[in-house]
Amino acid sequence: MQQYEITLPPFKRGFHIITEKILNHIPKLPKTGIAHVFIKHTSAGITINEAADPTVLQDFDVSFDKLIPENQPHYIHTLEGSDDMPAHIKSSLVGSSLSIPITNHKLNLGTWQGIYLCEFRNSGGFRDIVVTIY
Amino acid sequence: MQQYEITLPPFKRGFHIITEKILNHIPKLPKTGIAHVFIKHTSAGITINEAADPTVLQDFDVSFDKLIPENQPHYIHTLEGSDDMPAHIKSSLVGSSLSIPITNHKLNLGTWQGIYLCEFRNSGGFRDIVVTIY
Amino acid sequence: MQQYEITLPPFKRGFHIITEKILNHIPKLPKTGIAHVFIKHTSAGITINEAADPTVLQDFDVSFDKLIPENQPHYIHTLEGSDDMPAHIKSSLVGSSLSIPITNHKLNLGTWQGIYLCEFRNSGGFRDIVVTIY
Repeated sequence: MQQYEITLPPFKRGFHIITEKILNHIPKLPKTGIAHVFIKHTSAGITINEAADPTVLQDFDVSFDKLIPENQPHYIHTLEGSDDMPAHIKSSLVGSSLSIPITNHKLNLGTWQGIYLCEFRNSGGFRDIVVTIY
Repeated sequence: MQQYEITLPPFKRGFHIITEKILNHIPKLPKTGIAHVFIKHTSAGITINEAADPTVLQDFDVSFDKLIPENQPHYIHTLEGSDDMPAHIKSSLVGSSLSIPITNHKLNLGTWQGIYLCEFRNSGGFRDIVVTIY
Repeated sequence: MQQYEITLPPFKRGFHIITEKILNHIPKLPKTGIAHVFIKHTSAGITINEAADPTVLQDFDVSFDKLIPENQPHYIHTLEGSDDMPAHIKSSLVGSSLSIPITNHKLNLGTWQGIYLCEFRNSGGFRDIVVTIY
């Protein structure tokens, strides 16, 4: 079992493909295993989705804003800005960890799959990720 | 650690219980462990939910269509059909992998729990699943 | 690999932080590993989110009720009460399991992260959780 802590530079609010950024931090994957990717934040998430067409990322962004809108009258937790509470909810919808099978020393992703960093804050800053390979 | 790649035949758009279909591909579960189930697609997902009453599956289907509707004016990624972009978003909401504890050589699911294949495309075709037991 | 089955006492409908309740059941975490937490129910979920400000929990509660409302005319599965079908859908949105990296004998959570028990039923009763450490 190997573990790597990765700090990603700030991303713009939205969805970003980070598959290569993560793989660049891992020396060599075992023949068979699981890669576990965990984000140590509550206003950003990670998910797997389509990595070929950049418009998918844009549609994700607008769709999540419509699904969990800002400035809802029922929000009590508003001190950190109108983007904060929606960011918490969105991050629980996509989740904070991924487990991906490793087969023949590679992530066994489907043809179109990539890892998304979902930055739900306007200025989320650096984001810490823990990768555990087993 | 054992790994099995399973190809499921095409399912109709909607939610389908596949617990037995997956177990049929695995010779024997270890005494204690984790079963990791991963779907290699970005327009279908897997989740765990109620496996006793088939009307739950129907209610899931309609509810997800209402949650992430087709033909939204903000969608840019529309070339692959009106069901495609909603399918991507829905698949990130339910997720693309499951980890289930194994206890006494069996999946330690609750009484009502089963594994759902969530087919979000009208014609999704065959779906590849990777099961890793450890 | 160690496995613990924990029965949590009934919680009120809503979101509750259970990080300490879970840790209290585990003698000692290994130096490096993964803690897998699985809830054996289809009308409650678990997720990771902000554990510092209790108003976040309240905002989660109202937001999930708005996202997946009760008494929708399309629900067929209504025999167990108006809170039941929404509870199933909400539990698939947050998910039924978590995997958290263990580093230096501790859960490697971010500063603000805690484990939420999401009770989506009005009277969910006791909830069984399986924790697997590996």
